[in-house]
Amino acid sequence: MLDICLLGTGGMMPLPYRWLTSLLVRYNGKSILIDCGEGTQIAMKKKSLSPNPIDVILFTHYHADHISGLPGLLLSMANSERTDPVLMVGPKGLSRVVGSLRVIAPDLPFEIRYRELTLPQETFEMPGEKDLHITAFHVNHRVSCYGYSLTLDRAGRFDAERAKAQDIPIKCWNRLQRGETITLEDGTVYTPDMVMGPARKGLKVTYCTDSRPTKSIVEAASGADLFICEGMYGTDDKLDKAKDKKHMTFSEAAQMARDAEPSPKRMWLTHFSPAENHPESFIPDAQKIFPPVIAGRDGKSLTLRFEDEEAQDEDGTEIAENAENAGIAENKEA
Amino acid sequence: MLDICLLGTGGMMPLPYRWLTSLLVRYNGKSILIDCGEGTQIAMKKKSLSPNPIDVILFTHYHADHISGLPGLLLSMANSERTDPVLMVGPKGLSRVVGSLRVIAPDLPFEIRYRELTLPQETFEMPGEKDLHITAFHVNHRVSCYGYSLTLDRAGRFDAERAKAQDIPIKCWNRLQRGETITLEDGTVYTPDMVMGPARKGLKVTYCTDSRPTKSIVEAASGADLFICEGMYGTDDKLDKAKDKKHMTFSEAAQMARDAEPSPKRMWLTHFSPAENHPESFIPDAQKIFPPVIAGRDGKSLTLRFEDEEAQDEDGTEIAENAENAGIAENKEA
Repeated sequence: MLDICLLGTGGMMPLPYRWLTSLLVRYNGKSILIDCGEGTQIAMKKKSLSPNPIDVILFTHYHADHISGLPGLLLSMANSERTDPVLMVGPKGLSRVVGSLRVIAPDLPFEIRYRELTLPQETFEMPGEKDLHITAFHVNHRVSCYGYSLTLDRAGRFDAERAKAQDIPIKCWNRLQRGETITLEDGTVYTPDMVMGPARKGLKVTYCTDSRPTKSIVEAASGADLFICEGMYGTDDKLDKAKDKKHMTFSEAAQMARDAEPSPKRMWLTHFSPAENHPESFIPDAQKIFPPVIAGRDGKSLTLRFEDEEAQDEDGTEIAENAENAGIAENKEA
Repeated sequence: MLDICLLGTGGMMPLPYRWLTSLLVRYNGKSILIDCGEGTQIAMKKKSLSPNPIDVILFTHYHADHISGLPGLLLSMANSERTDPVLMVGPKGLSRVVGSLRVIAPDLPFEIRYRELTLPQETFEMPGEKDLHITAFHVNHRVSCYGYSLTLDRAGRFDAERAKAQDIPIKCWNRLQRGETITLEDGTVYTPDMVMGPARKGLKVTYCTDSRPTKSIVEAASGADLFICEGMYGTDDKLDKAKDKKHMTFSEAAQMARDAEPSPKRMWLTHFSPAENHPESFIPDAQKIFPPVIAGRDGKSLTLRFEDEEAQDEDGTEIAENAENAGIAENKEA
């Protein structure tokens, strides 16, 4: 289960009615934050989300609207008595930029660890969570910029009949289920594959801003349960501007989702230009290209569950989202 | 006439319902900003105040809640096509701190000029405005910190009878009124003092945060039309905390205003601790010490006019403020 919250949907500058684009993903008591512009910590507080469990901060790039809120967030994390290390990930220059911004947040009670991205694509584990993988993929902006996919693996089903048939002691079942290999005192070895079925479909969230459309994004979005993508401009008449500023239009974003194979299940647009007052009004045209696309809104939340767990979702999230898809619900929280 | 807007009233960290403490003073089409925490530019936008005319930014000190919003503000000023230089004033270290924060705002279309404060008190002119003076005075915080008084001079009254009696040509009156000395072709010299009465009472705004009570603040607040002072803690039981963190309680702030001679005309408290949810509830006790004190609130505005111009104020500001003073009005904007 992944808890997703799109904290803001603005690009370029924060507005009184729109926070800067940022995503918070919660898993197993830990949080991953993607980007942190001016006001991101306020948007979190508004959603009653604590900055304390943020173990990882992923930066797409270092334009101010994606990192200017970092010093304040770090101080709020310190104030929440965090002492565990924080992993920061981003394009080359990360430690220099963060170090420079920390002129106003020099003393923190936790260690900052850096992972600077240099390859076109890099995959690594979420610290302490073997089943959650983070893939960074290079995109095409005015400065070096990365998108991110978060992939939650799901093990196969435990087959009790097979375990019994092989006389595996019940006390070993739990550890095998957790993926451990067990060697008994008499030398007998039990491995997970003896009792586990094939890996099942996990969960995938793909996030990308700021960029022109790229093949890397289309590939990253393939099979995503949720694809969050920038849509700086609502209409095609701003294509030249989009090309010039290295952003994209709603149509271009929707085309990437359509081209991804298999298609992403859901798509939220974000990082709207300050000039786009009603991004949702341009969604019908984008839906002609990729029907599941909707306009993100500040604080939009979704709980992603494994396939056969989805039916148990009782919080109404899916229903609310479908209503929006059909253009029924208004953007009330923005 | 000085237009005052208290953009925020929070201390330590921005909250969904309270911006960080910052003041905008407008005079003659120019703006002076005191402090710029995370979100200050959003608070300005909320009040429809443009960042373009900010000619001067005064920093009390460099704790993050007073400067973290600077990179974003500078970029928004750039985006508003400002090209005139900006004067920044603050304690020693100013250019180093601002330079460091500008790692995410390196290219600006305007020059930044620095004035680093080193003396216990320094007075200088607002650039291009001979009659507006800025006085920085050292206060007592955990790091070097200054308060500021803005003083708008007011010339004496032009005495037409005296001008006539001295046979001063009418064409010279205007220039003399503006303070110019005029030498005619025949060598006759006219000086302003020949036609101007004694200087009249001007306007004074004094601003101080963060600090323990000091003699320098009491002196600075004397005769102020508006004294804005920190009040981190509402009640006296937090005095030890106030001493430890080098802040002050409402009572301590009110006592300083009471001790100032002559008394400040109005007093607004600000820089409330995030734990103080209803600062206005502690005001009645503070008013026992200094009756004119009220709790500032985000976006609170006031137009200060010269003495005999006050009667012409038709915008209801004074009336609204008096209503608040009497505890009638609610803190609706906060």
